[in-house]
Formats: sequence, structure tokens, C-alpha cells
Amino acid sequence: MTLLIKNAVVDGKCTDISVSGNKITAVGPGLPDAGAEKIIDCGGHLAATVPFYNTHTHSAMTLLRGYADDLPLFTWLNEHIWPAEAKLDPHDIYAGTRLGILEMIKSGCCYFNEMYFHPAETIRAAKEMGIRADVGLIHISLPGSPLDKNAEQLLEEAERLRTDPLPETVRLAIAPHAVYTVREGAMRDMVRAAEALGAPIHIHCSETQREVEDCRREHDGLSPVAYLHSKGLLRPDTVLAHCVCLDGRDRELIASTGAVISHCPVSNLKLCSGMFDFPAAQSAGCKVTIGTDGAASNNALSMVEEVKFAALLAKIRSGDPTAGKDRDMLECATVNGARSAGVDAGIAPGKTADILLVELNDSRMVGDYSFTANLVYSADSSVMHTLICGGRVIMEDHRVPGEEEIIAEARECCGKFRRG
Amino acid sequence: MTLLIKNAVVDGKCTDISVSGNKITAVGPGLPDAGAEKIIDCGGHLAATVPFYNTHTHSAMTLLRGYADDLPLFTWLNEHIWPAEAKLDPHDIYAGTRLGILEMIKSGCCYFNEMYFHPAETIRAAKEMGIRADVGLIHISLPGSPLDKNAEQLLEEAERLRTDPLPETVRLAIAPHAVYTVREGAMRDMVRAAEALGAPIHIHCSETQREVEDCRREHDGLSPVAYLHSKGLLRPDTVLAHCVCLDGRDRELIASTGAVISHCPVSNLKLCSGMFDFPAAQSAGCKVTIGTDGAASNNALSMVEEVKFAALLAKIRSGDPTAGKDRDMLECATVNGARSAGVDAGIAPGKTADILLVELNDSRMVGDYSFTANLVYSADSSVMHTLICGGRVIMEDHRVPGEEEIIAEARECCGKFRRG
Repeated sequence: MTLLIKNAVVDGKCTDISVSGNKITAVGPGLPDAGAEKIIDCGGHLAATVPFYNTHTHSAMTLLRGYADDLPLFTWLNEHIWPAEAKLDPHDIYAGTRLGILEMIKSGCCYFNEMYFHPAETIRAAKEMGIRADVGLIHISLPGSPLDKNAEQLLEEAERLRTDPLPETVRLAIAPHAVYTVREGAMRDMVRAAEALGAPIHIHCSETQREVEDCRREHDGLSPVAYLHSKGLLRPDTVLAHCVCLDGRDRELIASTGAVISHCPVSNLKLCSGMFDFPAAQSAGCKVTIGTDGAASNNALSMVEEVKFAALLAKIRSGDPTAGKDRDMLECATVNGARSAGVDAGIAPGKTADILLVELNDSRMVGDYSFTANLVYSADSSVMHTLICGGRVIMEDHRVPGEEEIIAEARECCGKFRRG
Repeated sequence: MTLLIKNAVVDGKCTDISVSGNKITAVGPGLPDAGAEKIIDCGGHLAATVPFYNTHTHSAMTLLRGYADDLPLFTWLNEHIWPAEAKLDPHDIYAGTRLGILEMIKSGCCYFNEMYFHPAETIRAAKEMGIRADVGLIHISLPGSPLDKNAEQLLEEAERLRTDPLPETVRLAIAPHAVYTVREGAMRDMVRAAEALGAPIHIHCSETQREVEDCRREHDGLSPVAYLHSKGLLRPDTVLAHCVCLDGRDRELIASTGAVISHCPVSNLKLCSGMFDFPAAQSAGCKVTIGTDGAASNNALSMVEEVKFAALLAKIRSGDPTAGKDRDMLECATVNGARSAGVDAGIAPGKTADILLVELNDSRMVGDYSFTANLVYSADSSVMHTLICGGRVIMEDHRVPGEEEIIAEARECCGKFRRG
């Protein structure tokens, strides 16, 4: 597939972009139309930019959006979310994931790092809709749990999932749930499986003060970060979701191992977990990316909304209005996320053809002094016009193929959770 | 003008709504079409609800959106915002206000409480676009300032503005800028002018710790709230913008006088002013509403975004995830704001016909267990379908009359601020 994007605004200038397969092949004015199988004319009013990459979510949980809100964490989990999740069958996961993907695409996001049950359903949904995904094979050590898998079982699962070969846009990941849900004996199995698969690791880490205290009590005073490091889980392709409660030593370990932080500001606020210290992580040299977490604790999967929360929290957390600068936060939400997804993103020849076209003729994008400031502070999903992922157009002129059916199907699945 | 809204979802049920002039006349299934000059059929997929009311903004500042961000307050004001504002002429104000109104309407808001220069331009823009507005006549006591107006001058200004009678949707307000910019001698003039006009008062109050400290030093230990009270400015129709730094006595005074708080969470975060204590204000019995502040410090004028920030800040500020409940925050952003705008809002016969139609067939509105949770936590401007203000349709099917021209005109005005 070859694609020509004409008259797009890049760094304030009008230019063309040609794409062949999953790569950008040329960027410049007046590129020839000849040979392009598809042409998108931006007419000088759509900016071409790197899309958002969502590095932590549980996308099927969109089915539980608005199901239980404004509750203390353990009431919310024990009395509402876990009992509801127990009713989810594979078809629900498929329908809920499609709904979540639809919302992500419509808010300008081309990738999600997923941790949930029934990965085959997530893969099916991601393949169909053309979004990029890292799909976690989850491990939870509950006695008798089918999710208490050792390295061999995880590798077998991976092999089954690859019977039908995965597209270039989908990777498998190893997803031990968290320090407090994975037995010590299973930790090395996670590393072994990740190494054998060449797969990234995705784990919740230091989300709450209680998690940190419990871990220190149980594991010789080690913080969750230090404990994961001692087990070999801090690797350059490990994504640590949340990292709200870090100390200086934790940040050093994260920076020196090259592990990636997925900062989820909205979920952390909604569940009162706390505020991630962005300036401290930035000074320590940590790689920071941004995630939405699941819709049950957000309740949106909108990266363009999340990046504004991240920027503003960085300021109020540090008491410094110059912290969490728009360009730094946008980098976290786009190119840093891309890197953790194994994507070399950018609007330049040779880069992967993940391209977001943003409407500039919109009230939210005027004044037009800084595209970056507008994207971080005033844009919302309504300006996300067209999205290209790995060379494939997955949203065009605000439309995602099959929207109505996806929404209707998800709404039908919600029926079984409705009370009273 | 009579209007019939058919098949709208209200409290989970499909119903019709009839409107005559600026009032809702009937709500119920199967209302007769006969006599309706206009019919909007919601087809069972649009919910009818009370729109948002924005109780504190400077809407023409949309022209300065993205002009200067991520700076310390005084650098931002002295080196960027004030010099830029000095260049704004009446036409800029008109164009910038239209741009701001466009953004507000598109995000489901039917009213703004404005404080800015050249009120005649604000009135012109609001009248044309049909949005509801309280337009402040601003007072700033700078030596030789044309804005240093006494009661008589404010009343003359009001008379001039009323030469062409104001529509029912526009009121004048008296807008002393703040405790630190209005001389003590002018405070009683503000009350006198407000009383003579029967107009509300709109003032910045207790936005920063520094403001509170300076006020206490200068005014016998009085906080800004106590000082305003001593001058007679705390009245049931006074809107106090920000109120970030209140103590218990301040909250008592606000509650007992019936003055209204306009909570502006995004601006307070962006400028690092602090976090308003919603649960404390709620327990004290204060009337709380929500405002966006101006686009230079937000940078959006989106009430649907603002209400989510307000809910999440209430939680993290208090450490209690049950604080800032969706229904309470939505009440602040809608019916409480309406009340402060002199509007009796609701989807019921006899209520003012301010009606927002929200798209339910949207990924952000499914799961569909709680319309309130979805509106607060997952909606954005993309679900705002149609907006009716005082019986007039001011947005229909996502379109506001004249959008393209408003955007083009505003962009042209931005030219003079562009640097380099």
C-alpha cells in the first residue's frame, strides 16, 4: 500500500508526506501523485504529527465504565469491579476491547499496552481495527488460579496465540500483575518467559503507599522497584505502570536499568493513590511515558486528556509552574511511548508511518502560536481528524469503520452487569 | 418560537419536550407536533440535560491561547500577557470573544460570566451567537486608568450599553477586578453601582497565598473574603472567582452571605495557585459553581473538561476517593451555575429552556450505567450534539452558525501578537 498525504502542516509549513508499506518514504512539498494507491489531501488545515501511545490500559474494562465510581479502593474492587469481572466471557472481552480501541483511535492514539484476560480476544480486536498493541499474557498467583502460569505455560500460551501469525503491529508481552499478586517463586519465570519470547514485561508497580509498605515488610525492606530489580525484572523493555510512590533510590534503579514508567495521572487521582513526581523522575533520567489505565478508574481512554492532566499535576505536585512543560509532556505521550512500543516515530523519511492528522480549523486550535501547547492544553478528541498506523488508515475524517456496530455490540454486553 | 424535541432520553426514559418562547412547557411521551415551528427528533439516542454554566472567564483571551505557557505567574503576566493585552483593540475583543463563545457552545455550555475590557464587544458577540452572558463592567484602580470608575461612571457606562436594549439572555455585572487592584475607597462604589443596577458582582478572590498575605498585612489582618465582607461586597449575587486559599471563617462568611464560589481547577493548577478544598466548602454550606478562567491560563474553555478536573481534585486534595462525587460536581457545573446566572434550570415544565442534547451512541458514553458518571468522567466536546439557550437553538448537530468565519477572523487577529 502506498499513500500520499498532501498539503499537511508539519512544523508550521505545508508539505507532502509519502508512505510505502509501514514506512514514511519522503517528506517535502510537491511530491508526485503517480503510483499512490490512496491520496489524502489535508488542504493546509490538517497538521501531521506523531500520534499518542497509551502505555498502560485494560481496554475491555470500557464495559464497566461508570459502573462504580467515587468509592474507596477496596470497596470498589471487592464489591463491584471483581464480581463484575468474574462475569466477563471472551465475547465480552472482544466487544469491550473493540469499544476501548474505538475510543482510543478517536482521540488520536495508535497504540495500547494491554493487560487483561483472554489475550486472544484482544489480539483479534486489535488486528481487525489496525491499532498497534502489546498484549500482555497475564500472571496472577492465586491458589488454583488459571492465571498462575509458569514460564513453560506462558510460552505454550504464546505459541497458541501465534498459530495464526501476529501482524507487525501486535506483540506479545509478559504481564505479571504486581508485586502483591505474584508469588516470589514465579518472578524468575516471568523473566525467563520474556527472554525466551523476546517480549517486553508489563507490571503494576508502586501504585499506592500501602503496596510499598507491604512489600518492604515482606521482602527485607525492599521497595517494589528494588524487589523487582532483585528478581531481574527491571529491563529496558519493562513497563512499570503508575510509579506513584517512588523514592530516590527507586528512580536511580529505574533510570540505570532503562525501565519505562507509565504515568497514569487520572487513575491515580480518581483512586486517590497520589501524584507521580514527574520533575524528580525527569531529573533522575527516567524514561517516562503516559497511560490511561482502564476505564473503570478513569473513566476515559483519552490520551489527549491524559497529557493535560500529566502536565498540570507535574506543576502542582512540585509547586513549580515551569515543571511539566508542554513539549516534555507531549514527548512522554508520543515519542517516548512509541519507543517503548518498539516504534521509531516521527514525521521524517525512514520513520514508521504512524501519523495523526489534526484539524487546525477548530476553535480549540486558535490562537495558533504553539501547536504543541494547543495539543497538550486545549485539544480534545474533536480535533482528531485522521489516524494512520503502520501505513494503514484506521480513522479517516473522524470515522472509524464499524463504529455503530461496535457501540451497539458493547452496549448489549453491558446488559448482564446492569443492576436493579 | 415554539420548539418540539422528540424522543429525547431524560432520566433513562424516552420522552418529548415542548418549548415555547424561553420556557419548557411540557415534558412527556407523544406530545403533539401541531403548532411546533421547529422539530428536533433525538431518535432515542440523544439525552436531554441541563447544559453547563461557566461562572468565571475572560473569553477574548482565547486570542492569547498558547501565547505563553509554563511560566512563573509574574513573568507570565508582566512579560507576556499584559504587554499583549495592551495591543487588543475592540475588534480583537469581538473576534476573540466570538472564538471563545464558539468553543464554549461546542463543549455544551450555554452561559459565561465575563470579566474583560470593552464590554460592548462582548455583548455584541453574545447577542449574535445567542449564548447567555453576564458581562462585567470592570473596575481597576490604577492611577490614571480609564478603568478606575466610580459608581456614577459605572452607571453611565451601563446606560450607554443599554441604548440598544439587552436581550433577556444578557445581564450587566459590576466587576471590581480583585482586592489588590481596587482601592479601598472604590469598594463601596462597587456595591452602590450593583445595587442601583440590580446587577451581580464578579470579583477575583483568594486566588493565591500571596494575595491573602498581602491583604492581611494591608487591611488589619483581614483575609480577602473578610475584607470584602466588611465593605458589603459579599451578597447572594456576588461571584467570588477561585477561592483557593480559604480558611474556616472565610467559608462561614461565604455560606452565611450566600455569595457564590467559582471554582477554576485547571487555571489554579496551571499557575500553581493551589487546590480549592471542595469538601470543606461543601460541608460549610457554600454555593459552589465552576469556571474555566481565561484561555491564557487553561488553555481550553471546556466546562465538560473542567468538571472532571474539579471532581478529581476534590478527591486528591482531601485524600478521600468518595469526595467530589460525580453528581455533586455536575450540580456545581450546571444547576448551581444556572442559579448564579439567574436561571431556573431543569428538564421540566416551567423551567427555562436551556437544554443540552448529548449523543449517547458514542464510545465514551458506553457502558451506559450512569449518564452522570459518563458526563463528568468520560464525555468531551465530541458528544455535545445540540444546544438550546433560552429557547433558541444555538448549535444543531454539532454545527454553530458562522464557525468557519469566526475561526478565520480570530486567526487574523492573532497576527499582531505573533513573534519572530
